[in-house]
Amino acid sequence: MSHTVRDKSKLLARVRRMSGQMEALERALQAEKGCAEILHQIAAVRGAINGLMAEVLEEHVRTHVADPAITSDAARMLGAEELIAVLRTYIK
Amino acid sequence: MSHTVRDKSKLLARVRRMSGQMEALERALQAEKGCAEILHQIAAVRGAINGLMAEVLEEHVRTHVADPAITSDAARMLGAEELIAVLRTYIK
Amino acid sequence: MSHTVRDKSKLLARVRRMSGQMEALERALQAEKGCAEILHQIAAVRGAINGLMAEVLEEHVRTHVADPAITSDAARMLGAEELIAVLRTYIK
Amino acid sequence: MSHTVRDKSKLLARVRRMSGQMEALERALQAEKGCAEILHQIAAVRGAINGLMAEVLEEHVRTHVADPAITSDAARMLGAEELIAVLRTYIK
Repeated sequence: MSHTVRDKSKLLARVRRMSGQMEALERALQAEKGCAEILHQIAAVRGAINGLMAEVLEEHVRTHVADPAITSDAARMLGAEELIAVLRTYIK
Repeated sequence: MSHTVRDKSKLLARVRRMSGQMEALERALQAEKGCAEILHQIAAVRGAINGLMAEVLEEHVRTHVADPAITSDAARMLGAEELIAVLRTYIK
Repeated sequence: MSHTVRDKSKLLARVRRMSGQMEALERALQAEKGCAEILHQIAAVRGAINGLMAEVLEEHVRTHVADPAITSDAARMLGAEELIAVLRTYIK
Repeated sequence: MSHTVRDKSKLLARVRRMSGQMEALERALQAEKGCAEILHQIAAVRGAINGLMAEVLEEHVRTHVADPAITSDAARMLGAEELIAVLRTYIK
């Protein structure tokens, strides 16, 4: 079972919290709040998405690359290459 | 008038598109999609929030720091310090 | 006078400290140190270059965009566009 | 053998190229070049250090986490945890 299935309820809770942050941002724009407040809310969403990315990547490493229970070398290599593809787009 | 008011409909359209991406991510988690797909969707949201941040910051620079129509030195300095505060949390 | 001229000795001190970090990284590779140590040293250099970038950008905003002493609108707009060009490559 | 030992000459070539970029930046500051040029050179060094980080992390994943030749579960878990520690500081 993949970690995104195992951790489903925790991840959904995070995603719903972020949807709430997006709605707050939408309301702030509608209410014509000052741009300092808007920037602050955008930065909060960005922090949340980075936190989610870090959490999912971490569990990806543990479950699909490092887990001693993985018995297929090919499956482990696939997990590693998926990780590397994400790192390449991220670190630049 | 602040740029987040002037550009309100454009910014709201962006924010709603991102809310749609968040809903797609929620559905993918619910449907227990593979983690490579989940990571891909998270990366898409991250790209969108960074794009929004860049756009709002750009207009902040133009409207609250550089605009020749700003007549108060204090207002211009405030716009600059707000920008610098965001840059400090961003570039590290 | 540009801020990179005014702050020249402070900026040179930072750059020389970073050159020292690069030499330490080169020595660690030569000495075949463990990769955890190498990664740690690379992260240190990355932190230093981001710190330098943030400092120079901050002074750029203050000196070439926000300074009330700027008398030419065109000069102020040029300073703003240079800043925006850097932000665009940075925030993505 | 660690990847930073196996790839030693390639990594040293990258580090020396970056040291050359640092010297160019030092000379530009000494020569009181314009701040747009200074910012451009800082961005080049930052791109180079990120590229080096991505390369070393990639090889870390392949060699210390995913390699089927790793026979000790504990060694594999250690490689994974070192990677996760770097990701945590990086993705935020």
